[in-house]
Amino acid sequence: MDKIKRNERLAVMTQVLTASPNHIFTLSYFCDLFSTAKSTVSEDVAILQQTMKQFRLGQLETVTGAAGGVRYRPIGMHSSSREFIEGICEKLREPGRMLPGGYLYFSDILSTPELVQGMGTLIASQYYHANADFVLTMETKGIPVALMTAQALRIPLVIARRATKVYEGSAVNISYVSGSGSIESMALSRRAVKEGQRALIVDDFMRGGGTARGMMELMKEFSVTVAGICFVLALEEPKKRLIEGEKALMLLSDMRDGEPLSVRPADWIV
Amino acid sequence: MDKIKRNERLAVMTQVLTASPNHIFTLSYFCDLFSTAKSTVSEDVAILQQTMKQFRLGQLETVTGAAGGVRYRPIGMHSSSREFIEGICEKLREPGRMLPGGYLYFSDILSTPELVQGMGTLIASQYYHANADFVLTMETKGIPVALMTAQALRIPLVIARRATKVYEGSAVNISYVSGSGSIESMALSRRAVKEGQRALIVDDFMRGGGTARGMMELMKEFSVTVAGICFVLALEEPKKRLIEGEKALMLLSDMRDGEPLSVRPADWIV
Repeated sequence: MDKIKRNERLAVMTQVLTASPNHIFTLSYFCDLFSTAKSTVSEDVAILQQTMKQFRLGQLETVTGAAGGVRYRPIGMHSSSREFIEGICEKLREPGRMLPGGYLYFSDILSTPELVQGMGTLIASQYYHANADFVLTMETKGIPVALMTAQALRIPLVIARRATKVYEGSAVNISYVSGSGSIESMALSRRAVKEGQRALIVDDFMRGGGTARGMMELMKEFSVTVAGICFVLALEEPKKRLIEGEKALMLLSDMRDGEPLSVRPADWIV
Repeated sequence: MDKIKRNERLAVMTQVLTASPNHIFTLSYFCDLFSTAKSTVSEDVAILQQTMKQFRLGQLETVTGAAGGVRYRPIGMHSSSREFIEGICEKLREPGRMLPGGYLYFSDILSTPELVQGMGTLIASQYYHANADFVLTMETKGIPVALMTAQALRIPLVIARRATKVYEGSAVNISYVSGSGSIESMALSRRAVKEGQRALIVDDFMRGGGTARGMMELMKEFSVTVAGICFVLALEEPKKRLIEGEKALMLLSDMRDGEPLSVRPADWIV
């Protein structure tokens, strides 16, 4: 193979690092890939760090120690996260999204790849230090955002089901009171998680926190610690709040038929 | 801003292009970003094309015409796609995955971000010319792979539900015969798709094609054309085949309790 130029090395390193967020690549990995010296790769990393910072393309960190190397985290990716979330709020305010019964249609937003990737990345940015072993969500609408959060954190996604499924093997089943007061059930395959792990709960909407409290109870059954809870959208002042300490990307203060939705990005998003 | 060096431009362009697969960026976009001449950006693109080809990082294409520019497609991303899928087959053969009743546990594989991204990218690589407007899947297990397919194609994901949900608005509901012979139902929000669009169906498992045929019937109700059908795993010789023309990543020839699973990558994967 011909000698690889710095130009080319930087392009390849960018691609490799950003394609596997939060994964630590050793410098030797790149030395082997390019048949080049460690000092050269170190210089490459320094240039990349500076460039990513300048263009707000995320954070490149060098990790020291035996398992050390270089790691990319998609933190501060959008020129403005607030602008990105404000753009989604704008979509939510579009007329016609209010459904009979005071429900909001936003399934389309929750399954548009560019939007869920941005949202998942933003959620992940708040939990790099939470040391979660997996992201937990409850089927169905929250799955895409939860998956993108898991991808940015490089941990698996675990999906709780409304009922036990034959193809999930033996499961733990619990009953919980939903935000609207009805009794619902939730099931999770026994083999999906391990005792002592840490879960990050990600879901699409919080009315009062009933489903999230259900997920917390479910985790208790598995002896799993809940390391954080984050929603895409949450009611700002629920009539009855069942959980605390949660985060949300967007806060909804009112849903009244015929009036524009009162929704805004959460304060922590800058 | 100081003059941006080629090194830095290439790193930034790689990041921007690969983060938005299948999106056409005009050369002017990069000229503005770097305050540089079009001829310089053209040279940058040529270098990137060559580098991505050499390191098998995907395809960079220049698109001519009024809406022209440069577009990245994650085609041929893994050093070997076959090796990647063979690795997943290996996981599927692990003892203990066979469940009572002849079911296979692979929910964990279907929600591990690195694996579903690789699988979704590989599925997408077969459908860039199918001109699909959206990816359709049926809740729940296929959602992560379908989302990653949609992301690589830069089109929305649409999720059919088992039953109508209040927060999906008015919906079309159909009944269909599942692979096991039972009557099931499937619902899709009226506003989720538009008449005349083209759907790419992606799902996790094909036993006989019952659910896929249900999705095809559902699309007929919406006057939507099915542009392709792809599964993660399909039974190689189903007792009763209800659809044809489908693709799959992996083929399962036998599932017998107590014996290792007979599964292999499909022939089209090289």
